[in-house]
Amino acid sequence: MTENNRYCVIMCGGTGSRLWPKSRTRMPKQFIDFLGTGQSLLQLTVARLKGIIPQENIFMLTQSEYAPLIKEQVPEISDKQILMEPAHRRTAPGNAWAAYHIKALNPDAKIMVAPADNIILRVEEFRQSVVKAFEFIEQHDTLLTFGVKPTRPETRYGYIQQGKEIDGEFAHVKTFTEKPDLELAKVFVDSGEFYWNTGIFFWSADAIIKALSEDAASKVSSRFAEGEGIYGTDKEMDFIKEIYAASQSVSVDYAVLEKADNVSVLRVDGIGWTDLGTWGSLYDVSPKTREGNVTQGAKTMMLNSRNNIVSATRDKLVIASGLNDYIIADSDNALLIVPRSEEQKIRNYVREVKTNHGKEYL
Amino acid sequence: MTENNRYCVIMCGGTGSRLWPKSRTRMPKQFIDFLGTGQSLLQLTVARLKGIIPQENIFMLTQSEYAPLIKEQVPEISDKQILMEPAHRRTAPGNAWAAYHIKALNPDAKIMVAPADNIILRVEEFRQSVVKAFEFIEQHDTLLTFGVKPTRPETRYGYIQQGKEIDGEFAHVKTFTEKPDLELAKVFVDSGEFYWNTGIFFWSADAIIKALSEDAASKVSSRFAEGEGIYGTDKEMDFIKEIYAASQSVSVDYAVLEKADNVSVLRVDGIGWTDLGTWGSLYDVSPKTREGNVTQGAKTMMLNSRNNIVSATRDKLVIASGLNDYIIADSDNALLIVPRSEEQKIRNYVREVKTNHGKEYL
Repeated sequence: MTENNRYCVIMCGGTGSRLWPKSRTRMPKQFIDFLGTGQSLLQLTVARLKGIIPQENIFMLTQSEYAPLIKEQVPEISDKQILMEPAHRRTAPGNAWAAYHIKALNPDAKIMVAPADNIILRVEEFRQSVVKAFEFIEQHDTLLTFGVKPTRPETRYGYIQQGKEIDGEFAHVKTFTEKPDLELAKVFVDSGEFYWNTGIFFWSADAIIKALSEDAASKVSSRFAEGEGIYGTDKEMDFIKEIYAASQSVSVDYAVLEKADNVSVLRVDGIGWTDLGTWGSLYDVSPKTREGNVTQGAKTMMLNSRNNIVSATRDKLVIASGLNDYIIADSDNALLIVPRSEEQKIRNYVREVKTNHGKEYL
Repeated sequence: MTENNRYCVIMCGGTGSRLWPKSRTRMPKQFIDFLGTGQSLLQLTVARLKGIIPQENIFMLTQSEYAPLIKEQVPEISDKQILMEPAHRRTAPGNAWAAYHIKALNPDAKIMVAPADNIILRVEEFRQSVVKAFEFIEQHDTLLTFGVKPTRPETRYGYIQQGKEIDGEFAHVKTFTEKPDLELAKVFVDSGEFYWNTGIFFWSADAIIKALSEDAASKVSSRFAEGEGIYGTDKEMDFIKEIYAASQSVSVDYAVLEKADNVSVLRVDGIGWTDLGTWGSLYDVSPKTREGNVTQGAKTMMLNSRNNIVSATRDKLVIASGLNDYIIADSDNALLIVPRSEEQKIRNYVREVKTNHGKEYL
């Protein structure tokens, strides 16, 4: 059965600091029910894969402090399916470890990499695309990514330039560009050749390991390769702790996808994808009043105020007057009132909070 | 001893809705430690009178729901010193009742009327002025008010026009004007003839009863006069309940001071007086950062923001960016973010809150 070769690594170690103060270090965005569905983003991510990927083949890549939250929210996951990174090192080391770990369990493993903070509005279309993607990588030696046709020159996302078409939905990838500025994003959108990079990847364990080994510069793979024979044994965690401490912090996009020549894209315009990275992305996907205001969990009285997003604990009453294009986010011990245009700076504000006011506000 | 004829009626029945959501129906401004001194505005008001007015001659004019708060904050006050108005009827009925009640206890009573929400920065000067005021009304048949020379064309206060001088500090009053618009306030300030009306009054029980009886239009006094012989007896509260229900809601300024011809003013520029009626008045008296921001009970990170007042429960962290001249007031279940120029409208917003969201937010 090919299904038994299908694996998923859910990336759920982030702290979501751009969604502070709703997303907290102790309770990051992926564990929060941001959409009011009754399920956290992580729970929705797991639920979307049901029946496509065997439950025992779903791995969580995270930090040790989030293991209890994962077990609570996804009780069907066993301890050995939780890969606890000993340090924050972005996505390349994590994907290297996951690939080596899973390959030790199943040399024929095909791996889907799924961020835990995606919003997928059309789940059935998404599931069909996942199956299609697995079938594609089972037949091609490729690193595949889900791409979405841009509807606006969004500067929050990375862009994929399409190369030669493979068939109607699949194509070779020519270039990757991390978050461009607005001018460049407009050029990308107008060209018709570019797609948003969703961060949802598919590859065989072999293919990603090979691609990592070809990236000599960031030296991620060579250290992980030294552990062959140790993965899947009692010594794995000690080995991982040792190499993580010295590992570079680099993204899989940079270490692999921008350099490899066998990257392809599956266009998934119909799945209703959003990366819930910032208050603005939450604003974009939320229902709005006639004045363009979005409310999350609060009661509001918005006077002469347009295009704001208000988030507060349930039943809190927020009265705002004369505010346009603002983020108003209230939590138990912190309140943020900043223009939506500063959403990317929130991460820096939080860093400053840590320095000046202590960890209890993170 | 003339001191035994000296009484004070502290007006502490207001709800302070313009200082919402810090001032709440269940805990109005006068019971709150707004200045961080460790004492509420009411406690400060009582403390300022110590040694000038016998403790047993201090009366609280309030609503029944606030009696427990008064007893808790001013335990030296006995139950019979708390006059509980059976309904909200502004200041004329309250002062009529207090005058008749106190006159029944002491026909020679001289009464000071003191709002519980005043801030007095220089207490010793204030105490000297109080003594001077009592001595003046002990010798003159007059209704005396404390006036403060305006330092700016403030539209939050009423204005007193001075008539003939009696001596350097006392003068006859020619006119009273309730809150003027900015143009008129500027004319008043420029003329040099006008003073802010502090709402601190001094009169004998006889003088205020006589003045009220001459105001036929608002008919406040005639009904209270019918109760002579009942004040100070077991039947007083039943009588008060009956006449309050039918009484007009009218201010003592309107019913008496604007009409009487024996009103005088004692100029008290040196006492450092402020009426803590609005967020703006709190802003005015509070220490400011170089950028003009005021913080009450919160930690703040103010980015590119000037001339704001931020109030929150202790240890709450507030981050604001790009806000100028705003009130940011946070409480357990309500958050207000409005321009300082709208401070007078807050009362209306609170009324709307009551209608749309229920009493728990008041």
